[in-house]
Amino acid sequence: MPPRSPLAPADAPALPPVAGVRLAARACGVRYKDRTDVCLLAFDPGTTVAGVFTQSLTAAAPVERCRKHLRGGKARAVLVNSGNANAFTGKAGTASVDRTVKAVAAQLGCKPTEVFVASTGVIGEPLPDERITAALQELAADLRSDRWAEAAAAIMTTDTFPKLVTRTAVIDGTPVTINGIAKGSGMIAPDMATMLAFLATDAKIPAPVLQALLAGGADRSFNSTTVDSDTSTSDTLLLCATGQAKHRPVKAAGDRHLADFRAKLEELLVELACLVVRDGEGAQKFIAIDVTGAASDKAARRIGMAIANSPLVKTAIAGGDANWGRIVMAVGKAGEKADRDRLRIAIGGVTIAEKGQRRDGYDETPVAQHIRGREIAIAVDVGVGKGRARVWTCDLTHGYIDINADYRS
Amino acid sequence: MPPRSPLAPADAPALPPVAGVRLAARACGVRYKDRTDVCLLAFDPGTTVAGVFTQSLTAAAPVERCRKHLRGGKARAVLVNSGNANAFTGKAGTASVDRTVKAVAAQLGCKPTEVFVASTGVIGEPLPDERITAALQELAADLRSDRWAEAAAAIMTTDTFPKLVTRTAVIDGTPVTINGIAKGSGMIAPDMATMLAFLATDAKIPAPVLQALLAGGADRSFNSTTVDSDTSTSDTLLLCATGQAKHRPVKAAGDRHLADFRAKLEELLVELACLVVRDGEGAQKFIAIDVTGAASDKAARRIGMAIANSPLVKTAIAGGDANWGRIVMAVGKAGEKADRDRLRIAIGGVTIAEKGQRRDGYDETPVAQHIRGREIAIAVDVGVGKGRARVWTCDLTHGYIDINADYRS
Repeated sequence: MPPRSPLAPADAPALPPVAGVRLAARACGVRYKDRTDVCLLAFDPGTTVAGVFTQSLTAAAPVERCRKHLRGGKARAVLVNSGNANAFTGKAGTASVDRTVKAVAAQLGCKPTEVFVASTGVIGEPLPDERITAALQELAADLRSDRWAEAAAAIMTTDTFPKLVTRTAVIDGTPVTINGIAKGSGMIAPDMATMLAFLATDAKIPAPVLQALLAGGADRSFNSTTVDSDTSTSDTLLLCATGQAKHRPVKAAGDRHLADFRAKLEELLVELACLVVRDGEGAQKFIAIDVTGAASDKAARRIGMAIANSPLVKTAIAGGDANWGRIVMAVGKAGEKADRDRLRIAIGGVTIAEKGQRRDGYDETPVAQHIRGREIAIAVDVGVGKGRARVWTCDLTHGYIDINADYRS
Repeated sequence: MPPRSPLAPADAPALPPVAGVRLAARACGVRYKDRTDVCLLAFDPGTTVAGVFTQSLTAAAPVERCRKHLRGGKARAVLVNSGNANAFTGKAGTASVDRTVKAVAAQLGCKPTEVFVASTGVIGEPLPDERITAALQELAADLRSDRWAEAAAAIMTTDTFPKLVTRTAVIDGTPVTINGIAKGSGMIAPDMATMLAFLATDAKIPAPVLQALLAGGADRSFNSTTVDSDTSTSDTLLLCATGQAKHRPVKAAGDRHLADFRAKLEELLVELACLVVRDGEGAQKFIAIDVTGAASDKAARRIGMAIANSPLVKTAIAGGDANWGRIVMAVGKAGEKADRDRLRIAIGGVTIAEKGQRRDGYDETPVAQHIRGREIAIAVDVGVGKGRARVWTCDLTHGYIDINADYRS
């Protein structure tokens, strides 16, 4: 068990209940011993669902099933296991998902298409789904609204701390709750796969509107973070809305009524995504990168991600080295429009370079001090437009090599 | 001085003279002390030139000048310095290039547009070009046809061994020589920039034909290698042809007469590019990746590079772990067409997975043994077409972090 990340928050918040949501977790021995490894989230009838998944072309069997079930727009359950990703398992993997989904539907008395599944862990090993289905009756009997912490713990793989976030938003004068849990410690943990996040709210939001809200928020949170540039076969982000809050109906993601919900959802997604980065494998420093002056917001994000994924930028920061030349390099390789002779780079709020060269009389002292800290701020203006983005990453350290170069055995 | 890479060849070949090419190297104290850091390659009149450069949008001043001079198609000199990349140096950097190019032209009695320059080293520091131009007279007096080894040594930065390759090709019954030298030890060495390679031949080939030959060969060699996925601001590959060999004129890159030259040039480029990978920062293992069954050769190369750039694949190999699930992941993130249920993966010639899942009765023993060696072979068939590519990389080790997380001071 690796030590808790130095970037972890002091403690996890206690999540309030969400009307219409109950949870349970159990130790099923999928792969780990002496710890919970399966959790069930159950939703009251009428719950809508939205999802965002890995872009991988070798996506795992549970991801393919979720995509299919998402078309119905309704959810009664999410079943998650850690220890085995059920990825690259061929027809056997699809059959495992079949059996699991049917068993959950039978247990809860809902349609199989209302059941969502996610698996995280080793790739290429058959999923021992019988160990999971054997525990369903007990899981169902155990469902309670105050088990968010247990659920967050059960989905961990190499995470060093559980990840929980909550927000309250107001829709049309009515307060609603949004809770979220996540796991992930690299885009892929050591021979495991995946970033998983599950959110629930009591807001009453039709599935297509929920999908638009989630997709927009995911772009500015999970899709703006990176630990090691590797994309899991199993990344899954689900948002379920039970609709038990008593606000007037909403019709479109752009509804004025939804402004606060949209903002709070994005806040929650950013906080949850950043918790994953703070638990990045071997991470010793948390890095926020602001890109401005790009041709578009999308271009700004690509430039930000080129910096965030650069091993040379990440190792420089790990070494406490204010090596801004490597940021210039990363901007140059992003493939997005940038004006070398207008580029401005600041670290820790201190402008180092502007108009295509190092600033006259630049004093490295305050920058060097900033970069030896835990929280690093990089700002880059590429000088061609109004596009902007913020992305997050961690440094690349010996710890990352230790964790990932270990023998699987 | 880091120890010589364990992947270095036993010794460097002695390069034969190329008719019309003379070289010299000197210690100018650009940044390093007590070693040569500038080299001059001089060519007889009538020499044609081809070049391939970094795709970086923050390219260094010498790269911009080379691109411009390439339009003339003629070369009389290449002047290279190590220790300072003259990158992100604004107008001062352009002025440095101006002064250097003019001084070389005056010294050799040629046009400034026939002079090419390349710089490698720290980014963002003004180039002390006066230290270089002060040595030009001595460099010119020192030019000799047998100084390839001295030239290769002068352009090194964090390289642990000099890189030299030679081939003999036959054009129309006449033997011609192709010599090449390179430097590079990461796409960027610690706060330095660049992969540089300089080739010369006595073949008589018009500039546009030479350009077509070089561009094709570069795609299947330097552009198919990676150490750390970071693109230098200064990558430069030049090929000069003195035309002193007595073969009949050639007109197009596809000429039947040029078949052997084309093949030998590509062989030389691949060998030179692989020497750079073998000197990759911290490299302990050399990895060749063959991708077949892709939608096109280009798609195959992108898939190969996704595997070659994956920190998780590279750390697994560093740890001697036959973690093929990470190869599946990398194929999935490449963004190119692949059929998960037809994917075949072999390591060290042993098929591990086929038809979308682990092979029945797969025995890891021979694969584990292969992966503990120095030379690793990975083969992936993605099952959708006839595209193929071979790419090369090295593992990602603690040595990489040591080199790159060090303080610059």
